[in-house]
Amino acid sequence: MKASIIAVGSEMLGPTRLDTNSLKITAAFEDFGVTVVRKSVVGDVLRDLVDEIRYCLDHSDLLVITGGLGPTEDDMTRDALVEAFGLQMEIDQSIVDRIEARFKARGWKMPEVNKRQANVFRGQTTLRNERGTAPGFFLAAKGKDIWVFPGVPHELEWMIETYLVPWLQQKRGGRARQRRVLKIAGMTESGVEEKLKPYYDAHNHEPLTILATSGTIELHLIADGSDAQSVIAGREKELVTIFGDKIYGYDGDSLESVIGRLLLEHQATVSVAESCTGGLLASRITDVPGSSGYFMGGAVTYTADSKMFIAGVDPALIQQFGEVSEQVAVDLAKGVRRRFHTTYGIGVTGIAGPGGGTEPKPVGTVHIAVADSDRYEHRKLFWPTTRSLFKWFATNSALDLLRLYLTRAH
Amino acid sequence: MKASIIAVGSEMLGPTRLDTNSLKITAAFEDFGVTVVRKSVVGDVLRDLVDEIRYCLDHSDLLVITGGLGPTEDDMTRDALVEAFGLQMEIDQSIVDRIEARFKARGWKMPEVNKRQANVFRGQTTLRNERGTAPGFFLAAKGKDIWVFPGVPHELEWMIETYLVPWLQQKRGGRARQRRVLKIAGMTESGVEEKLKPYYDAHNHEPLTILATSGTIELHLIADGSDAQSVIAGREKELVTIFGDKIYGYDGDSLESVIGRLLLEHQATVSVAESCTGGLLASRITDVPGSSGYFMGGAVTYTADSKMFIAGVDPALIQQFGEVSEQVAVDLAKGVRRRFHTTYGIGVTGIAGPGGGTEPKPVGTVHIAVADSDRYEHRKLFWPTTRSLFKWFATNSALDLLRLYLTRAH
Repeated sequence: MKASIIAVGSEMLGPTRLDTNSLKITAAFEDFGVTVVRKSVVGDVLRDLVDEIRYCLDHSDLLVITGGLGPTEDDMTRDALVEAFGLQMEIDQSIVDRIEARFKARGWKMPEVNKRQANVFRGQTTLRNERGTAPGFFLAAKGKDIWVFPGVPHELEWMIETYLVPWLQQKRGGRARQRRVLKIAGMTESGVEEKLKPYYDAHNHEPLTILATSGTIELHLIADGSDAQSVIAGREKELVTIFGDKIYGYDGDSLESVIGRLLLEHQATVSVAESCTGGLLASRITDVPGSSGYFMGGAVTYTADSKMFIAGVDPALIQQFGEVSEQVAVDLAKGVRRRFHTTYGIGVTGIAGPGGGTEPKPVGTVHIAVADSDRYEHRKLFWPTTRSLFKWFATNSALDLLRLYLTRAH
Repeated sequence: MKASIIAVGSEMLGPTRLDTNSLKITAAFEDFGVTVVRKSVVGDVLRDLVDEIRYCLDHSDLLVITGGLGPTEDDMTRDALVEAFGLQMEIDQSIVDRIEARFKARGWKMPEVNKRQANVFRGQTTLRNERGTAPGFFLAAKGKDIWVFPGVPHELEWMIETYLVPWLQQKRGGRARQRRVLKIAGMTESGVEEKLKPYYDAHNHEPLTILATSGTIELHLIADGSDAQSVIAGREKELVTIFGDKIYGYDGDSLESVIGRLLLEHQATVSVAESCTGGLLASRITDVPGSSGYFMGGAVTYTADSKMFIAGVDPALIQQFGEVSEQVAVDLAKGVRRRFHTTYGIGVTGIAGPGGGTEPKPVGTVHIAVADSDRYEHRKLFWPTTRSLFKWFATNSALDLLRLYLTRAH
């Protein structure tokens, strides 16, 4: 079963507003194994909307339209359906009565234009709207199923739960789709793709969605039907064999939530001393509820001075190797864990840019170290990109280095 | 001139991701008076994409496609254009060389699949991508103009500025639309709305877009035509009279860039000691290029201990008033500026939640202080919301307090 979604409204074709309604609709569809093949936004222009409806019905069995149901002349979803289908409309007096009552309850008189909202198609199922004046409706015509909902988000949400989900339940015989997301750190998208070749070959190129997102990679496994769960479990096992401990988590996990879980499991604590990431590492760690149980604090050491007096770095190391060096990263990690009395310390030093680069140490260079009481690990990385992405990628690496340190050491 | 936009990627047809790229494109179009008639999202399915391209070209003169340009087999924008247009492709060796060099610079070998990204159409204008491996391209064929950009947001942004805007400028003869954004901190949307009543009445309810975004409010003034600039200047003057120093900036300004500018103007420096914001305050300050010129560093003092030994807070104050108190916030601000030898110090202490609240100090409570050598200011705020919004709003307030301190003191 293929579905399309149309959001109607010229305001969503400008630079300030997105159609967010379609997320709620796709979520419902996904749960019941309905594939959304396209979604679109069109303005309040009759001709465009008529064409769009026709095009969608050529490419799907199920169409959801949101918006364009209000009382004003801008609202032309009904008119467009008349033209696209050649159906007749009539006034439904019970809708007029309900809208009138709604206005009356607030002490207002119903404006004449609101009567437009009582125009119905013969054979439609009118969908009462408990959260607003515009009712929605359902039409089955020419072998297609068409749902039309108001565009106001909290009205739409209520309608999805009240009408669309029960219909899908009945039509599709219960929830069908299972999803599992595997999350990978420390690899590029093409590196992941390369490693997946034997997997693709073994499974006849059955789809596996690869998503590169903020410097990490997600593998989305999806399966439908009654054996979906066991199919996914099998695939997951294979992927774990391929990627090993490059997989840092599943589903809702983030690097910061995973290191939080590991630290709690090990009854360990951490502190950070960061320069080029400017506080983002501490901020990401503290995005996790309960992080005060294992995160004791950090220092943002933006100057050589503060690396020494706040994080206890040996001035001789800065003198000899420079602020951006393996030695200083390691000493930051060691120094901060002593200062904050934590099990682990993380040190980060680098050049975010755009200024400050030199030939031996260009913009994008970063040294990351993790230390405990008797050893340390270090990584040198190079991310010549924008300042904010540099910060994000460098903190990914720092979190991932701690994760690997924790998993491999125990 | 009518335009359509297609975003390619099955991940945007699920419940987790929106196409946000189209906002940047519609903004560029709006500036030059190009009307966007539709935008759509289609999955990585060749047949669907071919049809979509054809449909768009039937309904517009100008088409922008984002995404589907990566190296993997999922990426089929090029193949779809071949089929929709019946054009021929060939390998551009200079693109292969550039991608290879990019991988080499990081010490990696280019995966074989990346060669797909060097397939070009005869007659296309290849758009070099300084921010990633996938180049974009421009095609003029059959009376239509087609722009194809990578879907990665920061790559796309760069390409819009570098290629699309200059082309529109030339094609459309300069900007048709003038836009001015005024940014307000420390007020709610309804508070702003209330204050705007006389303005609306004076201007016959002429539209003014109010956008609430991440705890600040934007007022968008828009005008078309030859006198647009003077109309906007007049309106702006009125709005400045209404909102005074609640207006923290204009257009591309952010709170962090504004305090950076002010600190540089005053040849002043700042350091921060933050607990509940967990490093986000330092991170936002260091998001600004050149912030090392005025930001000396910070401490994330997540424990009572670290408030004392890192930021020099008097233990007696913690004992008497508790960690979350005006007194401790002020002592954090004073202590951190002494430790980092800065002109100003900011102290933040509060309860982000979900745990840790008490009846006199519920989740959402935050104390913020700014101090210099001889005085300080303090604000107590209450944001009972999600952890990440709490952190964001609290850092907004801290940055805004420093801004007002700097502007009012001089």
